[in-house]
Amino acid sequence: MYLKTNSDRLWQSLMEMARIGATENGGCNRVAFSEADREGRELFISWCKSAGCTVSIDRFGNIFARRAAKNNHLPAIIMGSHLDTQPTGGKFDGVYGVLAGLEVIRTLNDENVETEAPLEVAVWTNEEGCIFKPMLGSAVFTGLVPLDEALAMRDEKEGWSIQEGLERTGFAGSMPIYNYPVAGYFELHIEQGPILEANNKVIGVVTAAQGQRWYDLELDGQEAHAGPTPMETRRDAMMGAARIILEIDRIGRSHANARGTSGRVNVYPNSPNTIPGRVEFSGDLRHPDKSVLAQMDAEFRASAQQIASEMELNLKLSDRTYLPPLPFHPALIETVRRYAIEEGEPWQDIYTGAGHDACQMGQVLPTTMIFVPCENGISHNEAENAKQEDLHAGCNVLCNSVRAVACGEVDLTSH
Amino acid sequence: MYLKTNSDRLWQSLMEMARIGATENGGCNRVAFSEADREGRELFISWCKSAGCTVSIDRFGNIFARRAAKNNHLPAIIMGSHLDTQPTGGKFDGVYGVLAGLEVIRTLNDENVETEAPLEVAVWTNEEGCIFKPMLGSAVFTGLVPLDEALAMRDEKEGWSIQEGLERTGFAGSMPIYNYPVAGYFELHIEQGPILEANNKVIGVVTAAQGQRWYDLELDGQEAHAGPTPMETRRDAMMGAARIILEIDRIGRSHANARGTSGRVNVYPNSPNTIPGRVEFSGDLRHPDKSVLAQMDAEFRASAQQIASEMELNLKLSDRTYLPPLPFHPALIETVRRYAIEEGEPWQDIYTGAGHDACQMGQVLPTTMIFVPCENGISHNEAENAKQEDLHAGCNVLCNSVRAVACGEVDLTSH
Repeated sequence: MYLKTNSDRLWQSLMEMARIGATENGGCNRVAFSEADREGRELFISWCKSAGCTVSIDRFGNIFARRAAKNNHLPAIIMGSHLDTQPTGGKFDGVYGVLAGLEVIRTLNDENVETEAPLEVAVWTNEEGCIFKPMLGSAVFTGLVPLDEALAMRDEKEGWSIQEGLERTGFAGSMPIYNYPVAGYFELHIEQGPILEANNKVIGVVTAAQGQRWYDLELDGQEAHAGPTPMETRRDAMMGAARIILEIDRIGRSHANARGTSGRVNVYPNSPNTIPGRVEFSGDLRHPDKSVLAQMDAEFRASAQQIASEMELNLKLSDRTYLPPLPFHPALIETVRRYAIEEGEPWQDIYTGAGHDACQMGQVLPTTMIFVPCENGISHNEAENAKQEDLHAGCNVLCNSVRAVACGEVDLTSH
Repeated sequence: MYLKTNSDRLWQSLMEMARIGATENGGCNRVAFSEADREGRELFISWCKSAGCTVSIDRFGNIFARRAAKNNHLPAIIMGSHLDTQPTGGKFDGVYGVLAGLEVIRTLNDENVETEAPLEVAVWTNEEGCIFKPMLGSAVFTGLVPLDEALAMRDEKEGWSIQEGLERTGFAGSMPIYNYPVAGYFELHIEQGPILEANNKVIGVVTAAQGQRWYDLELDGQEAHAGPTPMETRRDAMMGAARIILEIDRIGRSHANARGTSGRVNVYPNSPNTIPGRVEFSGDLRHPDKSVLAQMDAEFRASAQQIASEMELNLKLSDRTYLPPLPFHPALIETVRRYAIEEGEPWQDIYTGAGHDACQMGQVLPTTMIFVPCENGISHNEAENAKQEDLHAGCNVLCNSVRAVACGEVDLTSH
């Protein structure tokens, strides 16, 4: 049995959801805890109820739409993602994973498929992190961030807390966090990168989340007048920063599948005829393999220190974030790969370089992700776009994978 | 005859002036057109009148204190600089040149020296350019900026014009701009760089102002997510900017007496996990020799273009300022050198890398400058400092040089 979901129904749902918070340039603005976010979530809930699901909301506002099964005491299989967007976000990031989950349930209903274990579609609260930090709903679910701590977080500008934001939008649910067993988690998502499109692939079988090391760097030299100060007596913080920034790029290029980025650079006093006395900048190294990431990290620290001492600059290098690489669950990966082949579209293994709710879930539960291409790899942008046929193919692979797991055809204990 | 000025009187005048607009950290805040600037100028005028000078104020607020001579129809010799400071400026930048000019007049009075040609001490309006662009008073005097245009310039924040600023502070003078003949211009200044101090020299015989080429650069690439975007498909504007910035430094180091600086760098969107799509930055190349500066300019343009095309970035390179190198007047330089030797303190030839009113005056009149060391080369800073004995030595060299020119002992026609 290979199920096919309804391509037009999925597309129509995406387009209808995109009308909520629609922006002039064809994108969406449904920032978490906004009126548009509330409206989008309520539309989703109404669709789930029409599809026969029972809907629960936990104390962090995470939504779970549950399709009953033969054995409702079995651990649930969750498909999920998020409905909130960036302020100038697109129609697909997150939304696709949620509405594809709903489309899976609608298809199973149409086909009268009853699963052994219950299926759920989850909407995680505040994935984008426009106001608060990202992936909070899933982090609270998995216990990575304590509920009370998360509820007490406040909007720095307007002063309201997440607790108040949930109450205002009617999503301060009563269900305790993670209070029933879950067997596994699937997240279907647009790639948000150019690889599938460049390789003419339709399905990305996501095998791991890249490890990430974020650094905050500060270089201090001597601010001085650009005219009178001879080159040989300068301690130019910008020249040191330029060399270290190029090292980040070089290290990113010297290992397969690695990434190296310096996205933020602030120069002081930032005046054309003053030699910069101080530069603050960010470094970001990523790799799917823990030992390679450790090697990149060591190489970077040594290079940065070497450059700073050569140039008589003071270097402060602090670790902002370390996310170890997260391999997804082998049996779930294998299941996705099998149905990608059965779908008949070109596929490849891929890593996720971006953070997703799946990166939190994967730390406590059997988890995997499925990617489909997006136009020019662009997301977090009103121009974000994807092809209906690719979205449909991804949804089919999700549907069959989830059904197989929920029908006990996949052994999740083999790890 | 070698005259010696009064070291303590000069120092006391500097310290008394420094009380006006004194800052907590030992610096001065007498921004042009402020109440403190007005007060400082009035104190100076009262001192000049006590020294027997007649004081005129031109339509741009430039002050000229004139000491009469045997032949008052001869072209005047002007010593000058400015009394305005940066908001966190020091006690010596500009002020020293003005008060040393007054000390020269006081000394000539004490010694009963009558010169052939009249001497003047000039205070140029708005040298520092904290609100408006720098060196405006001297630029108006020399006709490089039209008077009406300069008077109409407005404070962008508060809306008042320079005309209104002059009226408010009582310095909207009636004398037409540059309405009598001037034979030459001397400006005595702290070096604002580390060279004299490093070489243990007390007098800098300034032979030229460095030529300056300022550039505004913009590099455009492709903004993208730092995680999913492979290194080989990136068009990272920051990496291109880092390479071009290092080229500026390299070019500055590859020619004797050259300078290369990138002081301003703005990155967009400046987010740690986004590959920068755009970087705007400044370039500043300086050299005292016109042909070398032209060579540096050509080298820089070619390198920047080469890097941009290698990295598939779009480069916009625009010329912000070109100041050709300005050699000072040979007969005046020779006069300063002669009296530096006679003073008996170690001296050297030097260039000015910073802009000064002398750089405007030198374009229309025989002009030169004299430098003395400042502590650690620091200026535009409350910590700006200089030694009383060095300031005295510089004032002695100024006094004797000016006397010689004003007594007709120097042939200014030999060029």
